[in-house]
Amino acid sequence: MANKKIVIDIYGSDEGPLSVVKGTILLLNAHSEVDVILVGDENLIVPILDEANIAKDRYKIIHTTEAITNADNIMEAFFNKPKASVILAIQELANNDETIGMLSPGNSGAIIVGSIKYLSTPEFTRPCIAAVLPVGANNKFTCLVDTGSTNDCQASQLHQFARLGSDLIRKLYKINSPKVALLCNGTEDTKGNKLTKETFKILKEDSTINFVGNIEANSVMGGDIDVLVTDGFDGNIFLKTIEGSFAKVIKDIFVYAKKNNSEDAMKIGKSLLSTYDISAIGGGIVLGARKFIIKCRGNSREITYLNTGEMLLRIDNDEDLYNLQNN
Amino acid sequence: MANKKIVIDIYGSDEGPLSVVKGTILLLNAHSEVDVILVGDENLIVPILDEANIAKDRYKIIHTTEAITNADNIMEAFFNKPKASVILAIQELANNDETIGMLSPGNSGAIIVGSIKYLSTPEFTRPCIAAVLPVGANNKFTCLVDTGSTNDCQASQLHQFARLGSDLIRKLYKINSPKVALLCNGTEDTKGNKLTKETFKILKEDSTINFVGNIEANSVMGGDIDVLVTDGFDGNIFLKTIEGSFAKVIKDIFVYAKKNNSEDAMKIGKSLLSTYDISAIGGGIVLGARKFIIKCRGNSREITYLNTGEMLLRIDNDEDLYNLQNN
Repeated sequence: MANKKIVIDIYGSDEGPLSVVKGTILLLNAHSEVDVILVGDENLIVPILDEANIAKDRYKIIHTTEAITNADNIMEAFFNKPKASVILAIQELANNDETIGMLSPGNSGAIIVGSIKYLSTPEFTRPCIAAVLPVGANNKFTCLVDTGSTNDCQASQLHQFARLGSDLIRKLYKINSPKVALLCNGTEDTKGNKLTKETFKILKEDSTINFVGNIEANSVMGGDIDVLVTDGFDGNIFLKTIEGSFAKVIKDIFVYAKKNNSEDAMKIGKSLLSTYDISAIGGGIVLGARKFIIKCRGNSREITYLNTGEMLLRIDNDEDLYNLQNN
Repeated sequence: MANKKIVIDIYGSDEGPLSVVKGTILLLNAHSEVDVILVGDENLIVPILDEANIAKDRYKIIHTTEAITNADNIMEAFFNKPKASVILAIQELANNDETIGMLSPGNSGAIIVGSIKYLSTPEFTRPCIAAVLPVGANNKFTCLVDTGSTNDCQASQLHQFARLGSDLIRKLYKINSPKVALLCNGTEDTKGNKLTKETFKILKEDSTINFVGNIEANSVMGGDIDVLVTDGFDGNIFLKTIEGSFAKVIKDIFVYAKKNNSEDAMKIGKSLLSTYDISAIGGGIVLGARKFIIKCRGNSREITYLNTGEMLLRIDNDEDLYNLQNN
């Protein structure tokens, strides 16, 4: 059987393209059943792969040195920068039937626009980016939609996010009726801002969704819900607040461990780090498109490309996404 | 010199009015320089104060059994429930020159409307609720405005929040030019949703504010900024996400400590709990009114009324708000 092919866009990481290529090597070495299609400067890519003794038949390169940056206007970039790596990568994903998915640390907006342009489905008007978060106990997780692809949302979009998140959870975790909640400033039906109040009504009326109502941010970690719906701006704040809070507590523990020469404290710190290091998992899953793209965090590290590559493999196999940090 | 008088509204706590009265007793016993004016059912209050041997001259009661609940329409409640505890309490605060401030676990909206009605200043159109968060190292803090009083904000309101937060920090911490940042989904000037993009422009043009730009949620805990500006809906999510994240990590540590019988782990857990237990500090400071009201969290515990009472005393003395958890 032919190897599964994953498209990897090497531009857009805060750590630079080298880090993405090195991460790709981790993925190739760990998974002999995977080949990659790298999109970026071949003069940069080939020497690194050669040095790592990666066989020529494990990869293909689509050469380009152009990239869309945060300074670009996304809509204009699709006209002015047709050779931008993220565009070429999505085109390859769309046109090459052997590809199972794509990884990119690039601009979220560009990934969404590219998905609409080349990978749209008749059912959904605009894809969103989901994150699977470790919550509660016993490997419980919650799918957060949207994590940042659309900042100013309409209620109808949040409705689509709820459906897309439910679909993902149903598929991967064999949960028939995933519990959907709306991120809000209170649990009462009357709480919320204009957007969530309007969304609340729509979700309540959709019998295909198991809508359980509003949820407050401090309850999400309890693990009682499967899908957390919010607009991209708030999803981004929610996700990054968790990350910042965990980082702060874990740092405090390491400081204590060093100061008191405590093995136990060091052990706890390391264990928490592996459980809650979101930047290592580091990928948002684009939902609502024909194929899966994982948008890697801008601050992704090399390990992220192994983890998100495995995430794609698990999605392709309808397997549990959790516990990626066990690598 | 006469004792300082604090008005306390006993209704609105998830834990019930008894818990508020018991918290008041903690405050009275710890601070002989404080008297209180309790607003609520005297048949409930007096026996508890008697049992705790509180001298009759330490308190006054404004009797009422009416309260505004989350189910009420706030604007209507001001007409239909004129004897609601929060209304009577704010009226007392406004009319009694001996009062230095007020504590209430009641409805945020009612507190804001009451502040506008009875305590408004010509300069600010609508008060906001600030929280002082422990961030960074060495007792650094950041003032978050708004924490939930106004869900659907205009850019002009966020501008006022920035000024109010700066004023508080300047007054209490003698920082001449507090650094103000806007909570956003990226640090670049072009990032944000419609509201933050518009606010960004206004803040940048105001030379009375030291606006340092957008900040991501995961950087706030680093402690580099003094004032974090956001609308009430997002402020609420930010605050409750921190609370939920800390609670989750600390719970994990206690589970580890018990399982492994580790004294060090238990010590770390307790230390983190005292540093990061937001529900114990548990108060948002109403800014932009003639006098200070502290809106206690709905899930406040007895200790909260001691802590928030001391917060009022420190504000009254222009003293550092931090380290309240040392009680």
